[in-house]
Amino acid sequence: MRAVDLIRKKRDSGEHTREEIAYLVTGYTKGEIPDYQMAAWLMAAWIRGLSRAETSALTEVMLYSGEIVDHSDLPMKKVDKHSTGGIGDKTSLILAPVVAAGGLAVPMISGRGLGHTGGTLDKLESIPGFNTALTLADFHRVLKECGMSLIGQTSEIAPADKKIYALRDVTSTVENIGLICASIMSKKLAEGIDALVLDVKTGSGAFMAREEDAIRLAEVMVETAQRMRKKCVALLTDMDQPLGRMAGHANEVIEAIDVLKGKGPEDLRELSIELSAWMFFLGERTKSVAEGRRLAMEMIVSGLALERFRQCIKLQGGDARIVDNTSLLPMARNQAYVTSPKSGYISSMRCRDFGIALAILEGGRSKKEDRIDPGVGLEFHKRIGERVQAGEKLVTIQYNSEARLAEAEKLMEDGFVFGDEAPPLPPLIHQVIGG
Amino acid sequence: MRAVDLIRKKRDSGEHTREEIAYLVTGYTKGEIPDYQMAAWLMAAWIRGLSRAETSALTEVMLYSGEIVDHSDLPMKKVDKHSTGGIGDKTSLILAPVVAAGGLAVPMISGRGLGHTGGTLDKLESIPGFNTALTLADFHRVLKECGMSLIGQTSEIAPADKKIYALRDVTSTVENIGLICASIMSKKLAEGIDALVLDVKTGSGAFMAREEDAIRLAEVMVETAQRMRKKCVALLTDMDQPLGRMAGHANEVIEAIDVLKGKGPEDLRELSIELSAWMFFLGERTKSVAEGRRLAMEMIVSGLALERFRQCIKLQGGDARIVDNTSLLPMARNQAYVTSPKSGYISSMRCRDFGIALAILEGGRSKKEDRIDPGVGLEFHKRIGERVQAGEKLVTIQYNSEARLAEAEKLMEDGFVFGDEAPPLPPLIHQVIGG
Repeated sequence: MRAVDLIRKKRDSGEHTREEIAYLVTGYTKGEIPDYQMAAWLMAAWIRGLSRAETSALTEVMLYSGEIVDHSDLPMKKVDKHSTGGIGDKTSLILAPVVAAGGLAVPMISGRGLGHTGGTLDKLESIPGFNTALTLADFHRVLKECGMSLIGQTSEIAPADKKIYALRDVTSTVENIGLICASIMSKKLAEGIDALVLDVKTGSGAFMAREEDAIRLAEVMVETAQRMRKKCVALLTDMDQPLGRMAGHANEVIEAIDVLKGKGPEDLRELSIELSAWMFFLGERTKSVAEGRRLAMEMIVSGLALERFRQCIKLQGGDARIVDNTSLLPMARNQAYVTSPKSGYISSMRCRDFGIALAILEGGRSKKEDRIDPGVGLEFHKRIGERVQAGEKLVTIQYNSEARLAEAEKLMEDGFVFGDEAPPLPPLIHQVIGG
Repeated sequence: MRAVDLIRKKRDSGEHTREEIAYLVTGYTKGEIPDYQMAAWLMAAWIRGLSRAETSALTEVMLYSGEIVDHSDLPMKKVDKHSTGGIGDKTSLILAPVVAAGGLAVPMISGRGLGHTGGTLDKLESIPGFNTALTLADFHRVLKECGMSLIGQTSEIAPADKKIYALRDVTSTVENIGLICASIMSKKLAEGIDALVLDVKTGSGAFMAREEDAIRLAEVMVETAQRMRKKCVALLTDMDQPLGRMAGHANEVIEAIDVLKGKGPEDLRELSIELSAWMFFLGERTKSVAEGRRLAMEMIVSGLALERFRQCIKLQGGDARIVDNTSLLPMARNQAYVTSPKSGYISSMRCRDFGIALAILEGGRSKKEDRIDPGVGLEFHKRIGERVQAGEKLVTIQYNSEARLAEAEKLMEDGFVFGDEAPPLPPLIHQVIGG
């Protein structure tokens, strides 16, 4: 087998065998196939596409390029959730303690924010002392003690993905469903889980803005997991507006704690419970999703979920007092308000621009190396369908850098679209795929 | 400007500006853009294609990445010919002395054979002592003395092409009309010529087997030359069967000398005269192509062309006695014959396979590093449309390695297709493009 022939095959729309995918990926990971051949193959794959079988093979080869964490000494099922990301999406911080409190194990390897979306690791690191860089041994130990642990990708996990992702990033070959699927799933399946719930976002703030693309990605990911004998469903959920009221790192931790205390905004609570319910069901903790919902609510009302979160923070070196006193979290010094330029109904939002505005304020990253400021944030006072008066507050901006405020304010202001009539409200959950 | 954005643009079928092409090519040549980004861009360009304007810009940027040879102290026009290559195509060895004898200068920078086609440099190097690795200063000196010089690409000529071609070779991005055009034309225009005649081959032995592809390549090359204010026409010529009777390096030198002596096969003589005639016409040596034909024939009949060839061999260090005594050229030790398996008309040939058979006998290269054996060769005794009897000789194989003979013989035998009726004869010249 020669790399140059495999590149030609994909260039000419051919379908690779599992052996061919393995040859390319392991050859590349070992450094036997050079960057430039992988780059040419990635571009051919981006344009020509990968079949379901190729995607599964790629996922599997990338998964087995590294270690698969062994949690087999824990008696309960291990389940996780992955979201394709959006604005204000902090459900991981809620459902991990809920599901752990409910009796399953949640070994969660998460990513950092890039572009307009936030990352779970960055949010957790706004908690003073919280260490997301645990070894896999410590990851397992924390999981064993409190039923949940949240860490970043280590060098042992899917090294092929790490190397390939870095190359995709600089060769404009990121946004391809097969490649995205393999990248996500190889890391998630390395967590040593039995089941996975996917939260695939669609709408103006989603990575996949078009619903048909989001559906295809969801289908491919579910099929890939199932081919590898993992239980998996995908919830296609709304990202036409921010989830909850809060965006920004410390802000989102505060709002997650609110929900764990039985408070917080309805959409965030509802989605967190729904995702937890599916995790309970796929993890065979409950006989139905409905029963899973009841169990999730119970874990919140009883305070057991909040206790788990507190315990996890402690075990990962963080200051658990923030659970009771959120003022211990970093907070931006200044506030500004975006007010409505007119009266009318909010008919839609340019949700992606809200994420970009946050990144401009240093609450996100444009490049991997960018530092983030965990204290900056956005608080949304209005949702799609609400009627507002001219001059009414739409958003509170919490910021530190005056120099960056104007650009962010402009994006926020322009991000609201008004109409004279009440628009149809976007459903929170569009559909369940694979359920 | 960032390479990653230009890759994305081409990936999404965008058209580059001249500045964008220049940024990519000069950045890559200087080593500021890495191989992997160029590889991704090349694959995107291969699949999405390059427009005429992009092709011109690429050609020009690659041309100006190096030196353009200055022959301005020579009073006559400088003209050259380029062929896309085929089996038995030795017209350069004939037309260069014909056109030089007729009063124009022919500064020819040629390539080596690769795959199923032969290269002019390799053929010339079968002449003992012939040096194709002249400096550009010596190239100019020989041209000045005898009106012709034939050398290989030097490091000063289109270094961008050299670097990009090496990358295309290992990333399966060779066969794309825009990229091929830019690669050929950047080198040819660096010769410091006023006019160029292209011999674009079509048929079973051509690089572009399908006539529509050959026409598109011809059109793009002619347009590119004309945009750069060079006179240019393309002759679309037949490669459904070998040109002349001889293939192989020394063999082709012998047959070229035959034609220069007024002998040799009709098709080779006719095409050489036609190409020479167009060179005379574009080089403003004659008022018409017809007049060019007469001048070309005169140069052969008078022996003046042969004299030029002898002179050039001497000036480039070769043994000019081969002109009178071709037994001084290397010759394979053994002969074998391919005979006709049946009686009937030769209706077509798998001409590319003849080139591959020759390469197997070491008369060609599979890889750039392969050594070639200039003494091995093929002599074709029959042409398309001829009637043969079972057992009649079709080809004489001149070989050295017994071990390789069987495989080559098989390809040769299978390369002839027979029919019961006389087939239509392929025209030698299909059309003239840009004339």
